[in-house]
Amino acid sequence: MKLYDLEPSGNCYKVRLFAALANIELELVAVDFLGGAHKQPPLTDLNPLGQLPILQDGSFVLRDSQAILVYLAAEYGGLAWWPSNSHGQAQIVQWLSFAANEVQHGLSTARLVQKFGYAADKPAAQAKAAAALAILDQHLEHNDWLAIGRPTIADCAVYPYVVLAPEGDVDLAPYTHVARWRARIEALPGYLPKP
Amino acid sequence: MKLYDLEPSGNCYKVRLFAALANIELELVAVDFLGGAHKQPPLTDLNPLGQLPILQDGSFVLRDSQAILVYLAAEYGGLAWWPSNSHGQAQIVQWLSFAANEVQHGLSTARLVQKFGYAADKPAAQAKAAAALAILDQHLEHNDWLAIGRPTIADCAVYPYVVLAPEGDVDLAPYTHVARWRARIEALPGYLPKP
Repeated sequence: MKLYDLEPSGNCYKVRLFAALANIELELVAVDFLGGAHKQPPLTDLNPLGQLPILQDGSFVLRDSQAILVYLAAEYGGLAWWPSNSHGQAQIVQWLSFAANEVQHGLSTARLVQKFGYAADKPAAQAKAAAALAILDQHLEHNDWLAIGRPTIADCAVYPYVVLAPEGDVDLAPYTHVARWRARIEALPGYLPKP
Repeated sequence: MKLYDLEPSGNCYKVRLFAALANIELELVAVDFLGGAHKQPPLTDLNPLGQLPILQDGSFVLRDSQAILVYLAAEYGGLAWWPSNSHGQAQIVQWLSFAANEVQHGLSTARLVQKFGYAADKPAAQAKAAAALAILDQHLEHNDWLAIGRPTIADCAVYPYVVLAPEGDVDLAPYTHVARWRARIEALPGYLPKP
C-alpha cells in the first residue's frame, strides 16, 4: 500500500502517525514537491486537487488526509480507532471537519507563511489558530481525548498541526489542557514523532 | 429531534435537504442570528464554535453540518446514504472534507461577502470557487454522483453552496456536468429547494 508523501507536510504526518499507532505498514513514496510533481500527471490523475497525501491500495486510490484516516482505520484498524456506531462516527467527523477547516486555515496556514514563505495573511491565520486552540483547550479540560473517550483518528487528524504550531509562530504555552493531551498522544505505543 | 437552524445558511440547508430526501423529521428551531444568539449561551454550551447548524437528539448534541449528515444517515437513513464499508465511507469523506475546506472557503465565502457584507477577500474566494467547480465538473463528467455511484450525503454536503453560487457572483454556466448533476439531485423524491 503506497502513500505518496511529503515529509514536512502535516497532512501527510497525520497518515504516517496513525499508521504507526495502528501498526499498518505503508510504502512511502517521496514526492518531488519543489519540482511540482503533485501538480502534474501522473499524480494529478490520482488526485486532481494537486495535493498530498494520496493513498493507493491496489486499484483503490484516495485523496485527502481525513478520508485516508477513515479508510485505514475502517479497513485495517479494527473498531478501536473508528467505531461502527453512528454516535461515535459522528463525534469523530466533527473533529475531522475541524481539521479540514479551522486547523487547516489557521494553524497550517500560519506555518505555511512562516516556514515556507507562502503568500497569505499571517496575522489572520494566527488569530484563527488561537481561536482553534482555545476551542481545543476548552474541550480537553473535560475530556482526555477528542472523541468517544479514547484515542481515535480524530486525535490523529488534529494533533499534527497543533504540535507544529510553533513553526507558524503560534505560542502553545497558554493551552495547558492541550499540552496534557499532547503528552497522552506521545505516550501511545508506536507513536511517531513530528517531522 | 431539534435542528438549530438559520434559513439562509447553506450549512443548515445541507441538513434540511438530506432530512427531506431521507424522510427524517426535524423540529426546526430558528436562531436569532442577527441578534448573535449563536455566539452566546445557551447555544455556545451546545456548540462552543458559535456556528450553526446544531443538532440535538435527546441528550446527544452535535455540531458541524458534515458530522450531522453522518449521524442522521447512519442512525436513521439506512445504508443507502452512508454505507457500512470502508471504501464507501472513505470516498464519501473525501467530499465531506471538500465541503468543509474548498467549498467553505471559496463558494461560501464569496457569497458571505456579496450577499451579507462580510469582510473577506472576494476575488480570492471567487478564484477558489472556480477552482472547486472545475474539480467538480471534471469528476462529474465521468460520474453521475460524487461517490459510490449513487446519491449519498456527499452530494448533500456539496450541492447547497454550488446551487447558491450566483449569490456570490460566481457564474455556474461553464460547468455543464455540474448542471446535469444538479438536475439529477433536483429530481430526487423529497427534494427540498434552496433557501
